[in-house]
Amino acid sequence: MVPHLVPRWPAWLFRASPGRWQRGALRSVAGPRSPGGVPGAWGPRRARSSTARSPEVALTSERYPVRRLPFSQVSEEDMAAFERIVPGGVITDPQALEAANVDWLRSVRGCSGVLLRPRTTEDVSRILRYCHERDLAVTPQGGNTGMVGGSVPVFDEVIVSTALMNRIIRFHSVSGILECQAGCVLEELSRHVEQRGFTMPLDLGAKGSCHIGGNVATNAGGLRFLRYGSLRGTVLGLEVVLADGTVLDCLTSLRKDNTGYDLKQLFIGSEGTLGVITAVSILCPPKPEAVNVALLGCPGFAEVLRTFSACRRLLGEVLSAFEFMDAECVRLVGRHLRLPCPVRESPFYVLVETSGSSAQHDGEKLGSFLEHALGSGLVTDGTVASDQSKAKALWALRERIAEALSHDGYVYKYDLSLPVERLYDLVTDLRGRLGPGAKHVVGYGHLGDGNLHLNVTASAFSPALLAALEPHVFEWTARQRGSVSAEHGLGFSKRDALPYSKPPAAVRLLRGLKALLDPKGILNPYKVLPPGA
Amino acid sequence: MVPHLVPRWPAWLFRASPGRWQRGALRSVAGPRSPGGVPGAWGPRRARSSTARSPEVALTSERYPVRRLPFSQVSEEDMAAFERIVPGGVITDPQALEAANVDWLRSVRGCSGVLLRPRTTEDVSRILRYCHERDLAVTPQGGNTGMVGGSVPVFDEVIVSTALMNRIIRFHSVSGILECQAGCVLEELSRHVEQRGFTMPLDLGAKGSCHIGGNVATNAGGLRFLRYGSLRGTVLGLEVVLADGTVLDCLTSLRKDNTGYDLKQLFIGSEGTLGVITAVSILCPPKPEAVNVALLGCPGFAEVLRTFSACRRLLGEVLSAFEFMDAECVRLVGRHLRLPCPVRESPFYVLVETSGSSAQHDGEKLGSFLEHALGSGLVTDGTVASDQSKAKALWALRERIAEALSHDGYVYKYDLSLPVERLYDLVTDLRGRLGPGAKHVVGYGHLGDGNLHLNVTASAFSPALLAALEPHVFEWTARQRGSVSAEHGLGFSKRDALPYSKPPAAVRLLRGLKALLDPKGILNPYKVLPPGA
Repeated sequence: MVPHLVPRWPAWLFRASPGRWQRGALRSVAGPRSPGGVPGAWGPRRARSSTARSPEVALTSERYPVRRLPFSQVSEEDMAAFERIVPGGVITDPQALEAANVDWLRSVRGCSGVLLRPRTTEDVSRILRYCHERDLAVTPQGGNTGMVGGSVPVFDEVIVSTALMNRIIRFHSVSGILECQAGCVLEELSRHVEQRGFTMPLDLGAKGSCHIGGNVATNAGGLRFLRYGSLRGTVLGLEVVLADGTVLDCLTSLRKDNTGYDLKQLFIGSEGTLGVITAVSILCPPKPEAVNVALLGCPGFAEVLRTFSACRRLLGEVLSAFEFMDAECVRLVGRHLRLPCPVRESPFYVLVETSGSSAQHDGEKLGSFLEHALGSGLVTDGTVASDQSKAKALWALRERIAEALSHDGYVYKYDLSLPVERLYDLVTDLRGRLGPGAKHVVGYGHLGDGNLHLNVTASAFSPALLAALEPHVFEWTARQRGSVSAEHGLGFSKRDALPYSKPPAAVRLLRGLKALLDPKGILNPYKVLPPGA
Repeated sequence: MVPHLVPRWPAWLFRASPGRWQRGALRSVAGPRSPGGVPGAWGPRRARSSTARSPEVALTSERYPVRRLPFSQVSEEDMAAFERIVPGGVITDPQALEAANVDWLRSVRGCSGVLLRPRTTEDVSRILRYCHERDLAVTPQGGNTGMVGGSVPVFDEVIVSTALMNRIIRFHSVSGILECQAGCVLEELSRHVEQRGFTMPLDLGAKGSCHIGGNVATNAGGLRFLRYGSLRGTVLGLEVVLADGTVLDCLTSLRKDNTGYDLKQLFIGSEGTLGVITAVSILCPPKPEAVNVALLGCPGFAEVLRTFSACRRLLGEVLSAFEFMDAECVRLVGRHLRLPCPVRESPFYVLVETSGSSAQHDGEKLGSFLEHALGSGLVTDGTVASDQSKAKALWALRERIAEALSHDGYVYKYDLSLPVERLYDLVTDLRGRLGPGAKHVVGYGHLGDGNLHLNVTASAFSPALLAALEPHVFEWTARQRGSVSAEHGLGFSKRDALPYSKPPAAVRLLRGLKALLDPKGILNPYKVLPPGA
């Protein structure tokens, strides 16, 4: 299947020629191809493609220096009580437990013996009330697509999955406000609102598996952040079950509400350590009439930055994404996923998306930008798609980098906020520092948000390589006043890095909030906060 | 001064004729006129125009049933200590104290005997550390332009003003990120960033007086909310002094940072009850190349709603404001401020603003919308301005409604979030309910955000009128699952209404947060939280 570009507006594939670029020279764009040829298994449903091949994952408690806190252990009586609370929803099947104990990256592994599948908020409330009384630790789990080991147990925590809480409560077709249960899968929500003329304000590679509750709990950023901003602005209301089982109903659908402190913000990005999100109200923007995607090759990182400035100036309010990736990323996607790149090999690639209300106006804006970018040598080659399936194929090259990396071996992942002009320096620095100790050092990410995904692959986990990376990467980031976790959160793997981005007074206040909301510490223990007083 | 429309792009003033509308028939738009003819005193600097004329304001402690909490009283030794901390910044001048003890609406009055004017974060830290040790209550004050009596003392609280903390720390001209002290006046910040090609993400009628720290502390919404969203998304970092004097430095300039709970959100909208904001980092969007403002007359509220739907569909991403006001508002602005309305008298008016990167594209979009709106009878008359000063003149009609109302007598103000289709029903309901007991009952506001400003004027404060309004307005709002304070906050005047918009579990958690952050309760007491356990 090699689809051709048949765009709705006069789009073109183009190739730079000295001083000019040519319209009309159609070139093929590889369509989505599933690994192993399984239809529907490509792209977002990436978890599947990474579980079959890998060796056993070491227990977190064996690989990392972490000690079990004195929670109770799940007894026969507890199991009977769970069965009374969620009849038929108490899972002990080894295969299901294996999937829920190991994270998608296969970097951490818990040893929980029970997975609960509630269907209602009342179920979650009763589970937490019981666990709170019994001092049983709990790990809330959504789609288990996190990058920092936040959604799986560290020891034997009771796993509470939102998988069966997947009901859309209502959609307001005038305002575009969606209310749904926390376990709804992002891609299914997208489909639902798009059929009604709206779009979800967030999109990410894991959309086929991730749950909206998990997205909110981790304050997911993703691919539309540049246009629609943070979940802190688009999430209008939440329903949350607190550690002791109390239901906190802040599920309003109001764009503005200044009555008291904004409690929902506490839970956005708290990674399940302050409460379990059971329902979400979120504002969906109108679905853009016209979407164009351009994949462009740039000769250097300086040109990537200048291309971004030109984009902002010439595309203005229709610019909806500006992603970058280095040549290594594109090579790995080609090698491991057999997705060919339709643009001539370049040191860097940028993916530019426009979304707007007028195909004609957007096309004119994009045309002006491309003419400028090619004419001034910022870009040396590129391809444009305005047809949805071709646009998806271009997006796949960017969205499936994480999946391709997971096929390359053990992956050390860093997700950093940095001043945009220094964004790539760390990648270059690390290539020199690590030498042949690493298989690949790659950089890609949401350049428009100052967000670098820095990944290092090796044939297997190695404490020596880890020691070469940490705390070096964190110290480098702290020197730029950056963030050691831009959008992935801290979870288990990054919790010790917190002090690199937060001063002691802030860490004290974080601990105070945890103690206020979860005095027994049963909610997702060993996550977010470093161990200590 | 009667400026004419000389727009940059082919704009027009138009008047509906049966089935068609005419381009080119220029009509005059009244320019800004200052009350009393004082240049620069019109519009935003509204505080000045409302202080000279009014009678003495009753002491809050006499008008409302509120009891002083057992804080210490300011002694001679305290005054000496303050003088050591902020030499020359200890104000006891009666006129200055009068201005700081009474709110802009002249509805509440404290009796503080001291106003402190720190210049640095360290000053604020030392003041709070001292007050915390001495059990002295503190009221932080910005521009004192709030609507709910939140920024003035209730009794004899020490007033800590940010007026001298007005330094711009830095502006990143690539990213558009502004860092500044909390006392910077919004209009001055606007000027600063606009000279550099950016715009502030918020704008409000009080821009000439309000401080950015106060804007953030009250989570101000305002006129650009529809386009740039909430401060919860655009504020990137804060520096805050906690009740005990601890400086919490979260003044980062990162678009994304998921390292731990987002502490700054606690302080956004906490109205000075959890900490004193001393510096702000805020993301400014690029200044739009083209701005158009249209003032349109609508025959009924149903047409206002349909005009909004048409706007969203036809203006798409360039729609930056959609405000509405009823005929009574426009009449009062004409009567009290002598600002004539350039549009033929209509039951409702809407103000539509577009902001975009291409004057030509935006003009075409606006043209399509206007053709549709007039052709289908949604709009019966209107005027358009694309020149900045004419656009300002149209905006003045909307922005100065609050000022005009303050000239009409005592104002009972409500700021509600409601389902947009029920937005005006409450105004109609109240006109019937209050009859001649009220001078005027008017409705206006940010229709695009579902936000109604409901105002009732009377010749003087009357407990009987208050009893007819409250709790009726709050109960009506609660039945629609609305918010009893969309953007003004709760402050002193609305704190008892909190339970109409928040369930008991949420109120308990609010109290828990207050106790965690300010265990002695010295920060802005009697505000936000209702009295009680």
